Amino acid sequence: MLHINGNFQKLPGSYLFAETARRTKEYGIAHPEREIIRLGIGDVTQPLVPAVIAAMHRAVDEMGQRETFRGYGPDYGYDFLVNAIRANEYASRGIDLDYDEVFISDGAKSDVGNIQELFAPDALIAVTDPVYPVYVDSNAMAGRTGDWDGSSWSRLVYLPCNAENGFEPPLPRGPVDVIYLCYPNNPTGTVLNRRQLQRFVNWAKEHGAIIIYDAAYRAYVTTPDIPLSIYEIPGAREVAIECCSFSKTAGFTGTRCAWTVVPHEVCGLNDKGEKVPLNGLWKRRMSTKFNGVSYPVQRAAAAVYSPEGQAQIRTVIAGYMENARIIREGLRGMGWDVYGGKDAPYIWLKLPDGIDSWTFFDRLLHECQVVGTPGVGFGPSGEGYFRLTAFNTKELTQRAVERISKWRL
Amino acid sequence: MLHINGNFQKLPGSYLFAETARRTKEYGIAHPEREIIRLGIGDVTQPLVPAVIAAMHRAVDEMGQRETFRGYGPDYGYDFLVNAIRANEYASRGIDLDYDEVFISDGAKSDVGNIQELFAPDALIAVTDPVYPVYVDSNAMAGRTGDWDGSSWSRLVYLPCNAENGFEPPLPRGPVDVIYLCYPNNPTGTVLNRRQLQRFVNWAKEHGAIIIYDAAYRAYVTTPDIPLSIYEIPGAREVAIECCSFSKTAGFTGTRCAWTVVPHEVCGLNDKGEKVPLNGLWKRRMSTKFNGVSYPVQRAAAAVYSPEGQAQIRTVIAGYMENARIIREGLRGMGWDVYGGKDAPYIWLKLPDGIDSWTFFDRLLHECQVVGTPGVGFGPSGEGYFRLTAFNTKELTQRAVERISKWRL
Repeated sequence: MLHINGNFQKLPGSYLFAETARRTKEYGIAHPEREIIRLGIGDVTQPLVPAVIAAMHRAVDEMGQRETFRGYGPDYGYDFLVNAIRANEYASRGIDLDYDEVFISDGAKSDVGNIQELFAPDALIAVTDPVYPVYVDSNAMAGRTGDWDGSSWSRLVYLPCNAENGFEPPLPRGPVDVIYLCYPNNPTGTVLNRRQLQRFVNWAKEHGAIIIYDAAYRAYVTTPDIPLSIYEIPGAREVAIECCSFSKTAGFTGTRCAWTVVPHEVCGLNDKGEKVPLNGLWKRRMSTKFNGVSYPVQRAAAAVYSPEGQAQIRTVIAGYMENARIIREGLRGMGWDVYGGKDAPYIWLKLPDGIDSWTFFDRLLHECQVVGTPGVGFGPSGEGYFRLTAFNTKELTQRAVERISKWRL
Repeated sequence: MLHINGNFQKLPGSYLFAETARRTKEYGIAHPEREIIRLGIGDVTQPLVPAVIAAMHRAVDEMGQRETFRGYGPDYGYDFLVNAIRANEYASRGIDLDYDEVFISDGAKSDVGNIQELFAPDALIAVTDPVYPVYVDSNAMAGRTGDWDGSSWSRLVYLPCNAENGFEPPLPRGPVDVIYLCYPNNPTGTVLNRRQLQRFVNWAKEHGAIIIYDAAYRAYVTTPDIPLSIYEIPGAREVAIECCSFSKTAGFTGTRCAWTVVPHEVCGLNDKGEKVPLNGLWKRRMSTKFNGVSYPVQRAAAAVYSPEGQAQIRTVIAGYMENARIIREGLRGMGWDVYGGKDAPYIWLKLPDGIDSWTFFDRLLHECQVVGTPGVGFGPSGEGYFRLTAFNTKELTQRAVERISKWRL
């Protein structure tokens, strides 16, 4: 009889956001008269900008006429979008990418989840801690992370990021094969500067490791000279795969478009000890198990790079970052230790000693009617921290901060 | 240093359609004065129907207004689409599916490629032969199919389908864990009737196997009483996962929407010998590595089930099937042995003895300027056969048949 992939049963049961949603719903049912303000899940709330909407309408009309109808698109994305990304996201920063190094997909979540298919089953994985759960869970499903002991995986290298080390992950102490980095970081909202990122690139080159660099939040960076792409760092083309997304840049969380860069230089070894470029393996993976992104969606994404599109998305992002400032400065003014919120839409709150993050979640919900996300949900080093997001309206964000300011924890 | 997933290097190099495209392009460059007619790749050519276009425009407008904007959708698809599929594709045939048994995705190719992630690494796979390559390649990448010897995989069970057995695949001779079936069949264009499909369901129940049933071409069935869903067969809910698509039903090859049904009864064993429902594993897979289908695309798909949408897509499909009739009857009238083309947009041609399918491809291209697909590209039992498709215009389809009728092979 068919046996299942047993690794699935090693995964801890409840997904973080399912649990916060359950507790929030339960509270709302018990207290229907109270207004709950959600600063929890990292979803955008502002509509797609007019330039994007107009482009999508035009593409939909094309799909309705025989002369302009498009069937199967190129497996790796249409020229017009690949080239817009190469020009606007990379060439503009002095980074030359070949045409066939950029792969369009339906989401960075899909790409960072699927990329591990290229690695040997016993590849050793390192992640920053706290961490976006997809990097861990996708490797756990493939059997690379050992066993779950209730708080951590036995065969996963955690790189703790906390107030003590300024949220700069330490280099792995022993050899690892793959390091997942997400900067600007989800959930801490912190960034790495050039020197800090260069250390990781150098380490990867020295140790034959590769870096999966998730830059989904790059559009939120405001601090000067913070790298937006890992390819701004010398040597990165030899060791780094970069995943980016239109989700947070242009509000595409429900529209679905992203890209991944796999430079020709990035290699792994085969059983004979020969270097094999991962670019070719990713092409094969994508052409076998994927069939391209919807044509109107790709047109919508390309419109982000029009002059109007750029101006419009900057306004939206500025609005979210004003919310981040309100939270960051508001809480800091009350004496909280607050991180992030300057180069990312996430604010990472250090909790007073002795209060765990799920207790804080419950008290914030019950006493302030504000919903956030417990830090421990992102990894063991997230305990004692709490994530707030900048994606609600300005009005509700201000009201949430006011409630917290009057609160006695 | 990072080692790669070595299974990728076992895959044969050139993808079938890349090779046919290369030869066609080469011929076109050498003979620019000749008109080439493409009856090769299985892509649609008619535009999206008006009901679909209108729904997609409305959804795009919703995405441009704050009040109606949609961010992340449900991981498994919006209610409105899941319920439209349950009602129109299943309840209308007496099949009751639970809400959480239907999963919306960006394509049946993605789903049939990803579903193997739920199986143990050593699950034994059976495929009909000839076969849609994705079933094989996705399992090969996971290391289940052994080694490629130039024409077949050492650890894959082939179920040959040919003129001699009336294209009814034989039951596996020994135990297998998973059987992939595609009906109406790509590439042969043939179908299985209830009795034939019941044999497979019964066999799977007896042997603890499961069936992955790809019904992407179900909308093309014209023969009465041919099952459109495997769940029309008693017992199928216990053993079958069904993948369907809007690609061929409604011209969504470039728009991207599909669904997969995983009934609660379908189980595999874990290491303790306990039965584990695959439904829960697929939920976990989809929520970890996928983030839903674009909202306007889901609205477009739901519009296929409006009365206007249904009438409009039936007209389009009838047009393609008229082309299939032209090819089938035209070639049959010339004395060829022709299969399919009655319940599927594919016509499967038996070649005269002694001519292999790549030679026929080259001669048809060079002497008639007609492009098809060599049968051997779909598996060893495809040698001696050739696939033609019904997706070109009526005019060009007729012209291609005329050229073949004057041809002396």
